[in-house]
Formats: sequence, structure tokens, C-alpha cells
Amino acid sequence: MRIPFDTLYHELVRLHLQVGFSPDRAALSARLFTEATRDGVASHGLNRIPRFVEMIRRGTIDVDAIPIQAGGFGAVEQWDGRGGPGNLNAHACMARALTLSEKYGLGCVALRNTNHWMRGGSYGWQAAEAGALGMCWTNTMPNLPAWGAREASVGNNPIIIAVPRPDGHVVLDMAMSQFSYGTLESYRRQGKVLPADGGFDSEGNLTRDPAAIEATGRALPIGLWKGSGLAMVLDLMASLLSGGRATHQISTDIHAETGLSQVFLAFNLHRLHSSDEAARIADDIVAFVHAAAPITQGESVYYPGERTRSVREENETLGIPVDPEVWAQVQAL
Amino acid sequence: MRIPFDTLYHELVRLHLQVGFSPDRAALSARLFTEATRDGVASHGLNRIPRFVEMIRRGTIDVDAIPIQAGGFGAVEQWDGRGGPGNLNAHACMARALTLSEKYGLGCVALRNTNHWMRGGSYGWQAAEAGALGMCWTNTMPNLPAWGAREASVGNNPIIIAVPRPDGHVVLDMAMSQFSYGTLESYRRQGKVLPADGGFDSEGNLTRDPAAIEATGRALPIGLWKGSGLAMVLDLMASLLSGGRATHQISTDIHAETGLSQVFLAFNLHRLHSSDEAARIADDIVAFVHAAAPITQGESVYYPGERTRSVREENETLGIPVDPEVWAQVQAL
Repeated sequence: MRIPFDTLYHELVRLHLQVGFSPDRAALSARLFTEATRDGVASHGLNRIPRFVEMIRRGTIDVDAIPIQAGGFGAVEQWDGRGGPGNLNAHACMARALTLSEKYGLGCVALRNTNHWMRGGSYGWQAAEAGALGMCWTNTMPNLPAWGAREASVGNNPIIIAVPRPDGHVVLDMAMSQFSYGTLESYRRQGKVLPADGGFDSEGNLTRDPAAIEATGRALPIGLWKGSGLAMVLDLMASLLSGGRATHQISTDIHAETGLSQVFLAFNLHRLHSSDEAARIADDIVAFVHAAAPITQGESVYYPGERTRSVREENETLGIPVDPEVWAQVQAL
Repeated sequence: MRIPFDTLYHELVRLHLQVGFSPDRAALSARLFTEATRDGVASHGLNRIPRFVEMIRRGTIDVDAIPIQAGGFGAVEQWDGRGGPGNLNAHACMARALTLSEKYGLGCVALRNTNHWMRGGSYGWQAAEAGALGMCWTNTMPNLPAWGAREASVGNNPIIIAVPRPDGHVVLDMAMSQFSYGTLESYRRQGKVLPADGGFDSEGNLTRDPAAIEATGRALPIGLWKGSGLAMVLDLMASLLSGGRATHQISTDIHAETGLSQVFLAFNLHRLHSSDEAARIADDIVAFVHAAAPITQGESVYYPGERTRSVREENETLGIPVDPEVWAQVQAL
């Protein structure tokens, strides 16, 4: 089932107003949820709305809380998210990092006491749209065993890196687990095996069986010990820079996963290059990757964000695919 | 065969002076090579010396070239390495990023036209010793197929992230390939299989056989498509920030791999926390990871840099292990 962008957007604005958002904040949050859904990330778009509303009703998310500056020095600022909506807090902090980058060449905003930012890529697209290099990451509850550990001891701590390019921004948006739990669930429901090993089964062997990994909770970090280490240092940086909670201090109750720490970096490219020069540098790198012979005849090698762009164009033309059950559920909220 | 730190250091100082380094630059470069060897990274320590000297003799590395500032804005500076020794250029740029971080809260130095920095972790330890968060990365020649590609189209672009901690700095030092070519060679020579899939064999299957991967040149990016994307964005950032060469512009002749681009970031923690507070935050994260039950009874879960520290302590006590052939070769240079 596909619906027009505006239909989804206006329905989400209605719902945001109903749960107490002010009109301008309702509009921005609804836009971020709608764009994530349009870009093929319904897991952090429409499909996430019921949990988002439930967290508002429980008081985990305070719709009225606006982030305030809590400290910092020079081009590094610490902001307190005060338990507000994670997407609005993140958007405000990337905007602030962009402003700092105009003055200092780069800006860093470290945010504490925030909620899940939904699609992290949104803040990468935001930076790239402004013509800046953007980098941001978040910590999460413990949901991934460190390499060598039996139980979850690090977060999957997604990182986003975005590079502006007139012919299509390059936007990397990746968690430290090879597959998210949402992806495991999706493969299991479709009765499919994963395209690569995704974790350990109950006998400690690597497996592509999503159900076996869900049963052990032992998902695989990207690059094994490497992604495990990267998850740990991203958590260290986020909590040291923001002064907020580290992964080990975050609740593993999915309706109470709050008090997250995040970092937003923006690098000003306008001061370093003409926009033509910056575009040429990025285009040449993309062209080289595209030119490599693919493993499978007729397939292509993609840059990060390339398929997002084609999904976006398709969904803007044909309408945004929605799960009819979720769509009915949201309309009834 | 083990030799004392001072024996290795003084021999390397002698050799540096012989190939034309000034005394202070000879001392710093020799110290960096010696420390890498002491820390268990002989591949970018003693074992790399013959190639380093060969590149000096060919004129690829100019021992007298000092980096100069070439541009920038505010807390972001562009430096030109002028083909000087990569380790000295990198050390100077991390030092400059640390200085900028005293003024701006963070500092970014983007270096172009430099040579291989040898052990990248050295500049992470440098930042952590100064009490700062450090992050740096380099691009390389194309030496890794992007995900889906048959031929090398990205670099393995190592990234280093360092977090200071009084009881042992956390220092992540990782390339985007699951195993380096040096590691593949080492396993092959010992007749061992890799501890995890490291690349593709000639039939396109994942394999743990190091020789099969060396034959195809199709090493595996960490996290498959994820590490491939991360390698690409690190190259984009390094060349856009520095104005220097991208991976596709770097020679794949190992004696002519020059004109690299690198980024050095330092974040000032002193302005955000008392050192006691920063230590407590980092210690609690380390303690949580250490507390997780290991998969294998009696084994431990390590933080990045933890084993480096124990190797260092052992080698400082017992002497630094050296390959007798390489040691003789270096003494004869």
C-alpha cells in the first residue's frame, strides 16, 4: 500500500498536535518521520510512531522540552536535551554545530539527556544540504556483546558521516552491529536467511539464521573485534564530551531507553573550497568507485546514500509504501 | 631474539643520521619506530625500516621537508606535508591540533602531500598522553575492493580514536580491512588459517585461507558493505578537508605510495571536566565491559589498547622481540 507524502505528513502533524506538540515542533517532527519513511527507513519512520507515542504517554519523552546549553568551550558546546523528543533535539544540535562551523571552521555539539533520534541519517542529510561535512553518533542501551563477551556490554551506537555533493550527497548511516534487531525480525518473518553471518547460535557458532541470533541475543559487531572497539570508543567520546550517560547507565527497557548521549560535528567546506572545486573532488571519488568492475555482471557498486536517493525518487513518484496495519493503527491513535 | 629499547633506539638514530635526518628529527622518528616495535607493531616499526630507507633513497620521502600551513579557517587548518617523513608530519599535525584545541575547544589539522605515517596509533597515544581525545585517519592507495566490486577501489584507510585514562588509555587503531596484507602473510608463513573470514577465494567464496585471499587481492572490508562505505567517506573527508589527493590518485607501487591525505582531530577535555571526573566516566565504561561474562571461561574481554599496554610492559622488562634477519639487515644499512 502506497500513500502520498502529504497524506502521511498531515496525518503525523495531526497526531503530534494531539499528543501536545506546539505547531512548529509538530511540523518538524512529522516531516522527519515522513522523510525517513519516504527514504525507505520505515523502521524509524511510520513504524516507530506507536512506540514514540507510548513513550510520550509514559512521560519518557517530554514534548515541550527544548534543549539548553549546559557548558562548553569555544567550538565545543554541551547541550542538555532535558528528555525532549530525540529527533527535535538532534536536529537543533546539528543546526547549532553548523552555526558554530561558520564561526570556527568546525563545530561540535555534545548532547546529553536526550531520547532516540529515530533515523540518524536525517542529521547527516541536514548537514549535507547545508553544504557541510557532517558527522554524528549516538550511544544506546547495551544491546551488543563486546567481542569475546557472552552478554550485551556495548551499544550498537550508530554513526553517520555525510559529504555534500550536488549530484547526490554521500551519507553513511551505520550501526556497529552487522544487522539490527529490526532486520533480523524482518528476515525471520519472511522465512529468509541473512545475506551474511549475523551472530552466534546457542552452540557458539556463527550463523545466518535470524531466529537463532534473536534467541541468543548475540549479534555480531561489524568487523568482529573492530566494531566492538569502535562502539566502545564512540560511547566514551559521547559521554566524556556531553557529560551525559554512558551505555551502561541506560535502561534496557525499550520504553525507558532514555538519557542518551550524542555528538554532532559539522565542518565548513565553503571556507576551504569553491563549491565547484569541492564537487569535483567528491565526484572523482564517486566515479572511481563506480568504475570498478562489479563481482556480479550487470550489478553496480554503490556509494553510501545512493540507493536512498533512488528509493526516495521512486516513493515521491509512486507514493510512500506503508504497512496497512501500522497505518490503520496510527490513524486510530 | 630480544634487545633492549635503548639498543634499538640508538641503532635507529644512527641510521636516520646516516640517511640525512637532522639530530632532533632523527631522535623523534627513531623513537616512534622503536615505540611501535616495543608495542608489538613491528610491521610498522623495525620491519618497515628497509622500505622506509629505500623510499628515502628513491626521493619519495624528503627527510628535510617540514610541513607548512597552506590554508584553513579558525579551528580547521590545512597543512602541506611536502613529501616529508610521514611519521614526523603526522606527529607535528597532531601536536598542532592539540594546540588548536587549547584555544578553540577542538582542533582539526588536515594534512596533504604526506607519506605513510607508519603506526597510526602513535598519534592517538600522543593525544591521550596530552589528556585529549584524539581522532585521526589517513587515506591509502586503492588496496581493498569496495563491497560488490571485483578490484581494489577504496583504501583500507586506518582510523585511530584515543581516549585518555590514567589507568591505561583506550586507543583504537583499525584499518577498514578485516586483516591487513601483513597479517595475511604472517598467517600464511606460519601455515595457519585466519580466525575469521578474511576475503574471497578465486571462486568468489568467503575463506579463511590467507594464500587464497592474497591470490585474488579480494580482502574483506570490516562489516562488509559497512566498512566499504566507511573507507569511502574517510577518503572523501580527508581529501576535501586537506585539498590533497584521494585514494584513486595514489600510486599502487609500494615504493611510490605518496601524496597521502590525513586528518587529525583533538578535543580538549580539561575545559569540560576535572581530570578526576573524566577518569571516573572512562573507568566506569571500561569496568562495565570488563564485567561481562566471557564466551570462553577464563578469557577476558579487552578494551582497545589494553593488550598493547601489557605487551609494552613485557617488552620493557624482557627486551623488544626483533626478527634476527631484519635486525641484521638494518644494522648493515
